[in-house]
Amino acid sequence: MEIITSLTNKKVKYWNSLNEKKYRDQEGVYLVEGEHLVLEALRRNLVIELIASETYQINYLGDIYYVSDEVLKKISRVKTPQKVMAVVKKQETSRIGDKILLIDDVQDPGNLGTIIRSAVAFNLDTIILGKNCVDLYNNKVIRSSEGMIFNIDIQTKDLTKIIPLLKDDSYTIIGTKVTDGKLLEDYEAPKKWALIVGNEGNGVTPEILNMCDDYLYIKMNEQCESLNVGVATSIILYKLGMSNNE
Amino acid sequence: MEIITSLTNKKVKYWNSLNEKKYRDQEGVYLVEGEHLVLEALRRNLVIELIASETYQINYLGDIYYVSDEVLKKISRVKTPQKVMAVVKKQETSRIGDKILLIDDVQDPGNLGTIIRSAVAFNLDTIILGKNCVDLYNNKVIRSSEGMIFNIDIQTKDLTKIIPLLKDDSYTIIGTKVTDGKLLEDYEAPKKWALIVGNEGNGVTPEILNMCDDYLYIKMNEQCESLNVGVATSIILYKLGMSNNE
Repeated sequence: MEIITSLTNKKVKYWNSLNEKKYRDQEGVYLVEGEHLVLEALRRNLVIELIASETYQINYLGDIYYVSDEVLKKISRVKTPQKVMAVVKKQETSRIGDKILLIDDVQDPGNLGTIIRSAVAFNLDTIILGKNCVDLYNNKVIRSSEGMIFNIDIQTKDLTKIIPLLKDDSYTIIGTKVTDGKLLEDYEAPKKWALIVGNEGNGVTPEILNMCDDYLYIKMNEQCESLNVGVATSIILYKLGMSNNE
Repeated sequence: MEIITSLTNKKVKYWNSLNEKKYRDQEGVYLVEGEHLVLEALRRNLVIELIASETYQINYLGDIYYVSDEVLKKISRVKTPQKVMAVVKKQETSRIGDKILLIDDVQDPGNLGTIIRSAVAFNLDTIILGKNCVDLYNNKVIRSSEGMIFNIDIQTKDLTKIIPLLKDDSYTIIGTKVTDGKLLEDYEAPKKWALIVGNEGNGVTPEILNMCDDYLYIKMNEQCESLNVGVATSIILYKLGMSNNE
């Protein structure tokens, strides 16, 4: 078994470059770390190659590179590097289902990952990210999605352009306002809808918010101005998921 | 106006020490950073002294120390230090209301802060932290609570000791299980209840989980094993908050 130990090895440099969005975009691939995520990616047939500690055991017929712990540490972006990583190909589809989440300018990778996880939990069909969102393939997004990034169609689009198309296709565009609009508890979701959620501090861009057909709000104690965006989105998806189909 | 510029000034060392739990415990105080949090603390009359950039303007009759940007940078734990910080006194009460959240071993400060924020939003009366939780006065907890830490009674207790007392006082103890138990949508909350939520990876300690009267689960897509703990807790609090009182 050959083990890569040199931090200046060409492969090592390549893998490490994938921690930057620029190189992920250029190569159309990204890194995932840890057995749980690697197995999810394998299950989806998205793995290009594995990078593993010399002590890691796996039955895998594709390309696998064994590396020293120093090399793993260099590539990893977590405090305690895991024993296995994978180079995974990006997978963008153009399928659009009946239940869509539009994400405008969410900046915190933990929030984006949490939202993706909840979107899968509550049976969303498609997630469309606006151009200003944090990069989907950021390692923190992937980790906080708990691998759910592999289980839902995700696209990146200019939201101001996709929304009119969705409206033409009889989707109801749903926005959120902190106090104004319809009370979430009383809202019956239509058959085809797209929920828009926005930036942590500023909410949804006004131009986009103005395009909505319905506005929802979550009733809460007046001492609390707003909820965390991942929480607010998840509560709405939970409620909308309950109120139509299955 | 006197401006503290020395990084070895006694006060500077003291403030910086409050970034460690040990010193926060010893002194019974903690630091908050940024105008929003400082104003919340002032409104609650919890501020002992302010630390401000020489360019910061505020009408405040109590102790205020002006410091150089280098000093602020040393004390701050955020990338871009804010212009004002405060030393705030810890405030533990022994009041216990009808709607209680028990938190067992949540480790991520962002999750704990988010849960506190949602607990205020959905009208909880009391939060009781188990001994193993991340420190409530960690700066990330305070920031992600968005200042809501000041708006709810929070105590730290041995959960295995408090739960039997709550049961004697006719509280229903509610636990969560990923699939087993009562469906959240159908659950009608009793008058007095205590919800227990647990660790990110391992959930609630088995010993504590066994003490519950009711178990709830959130229906979700089978591709998704679980939700983020902040999200799951918030959805349950949203639902329980709706189903009784106000």
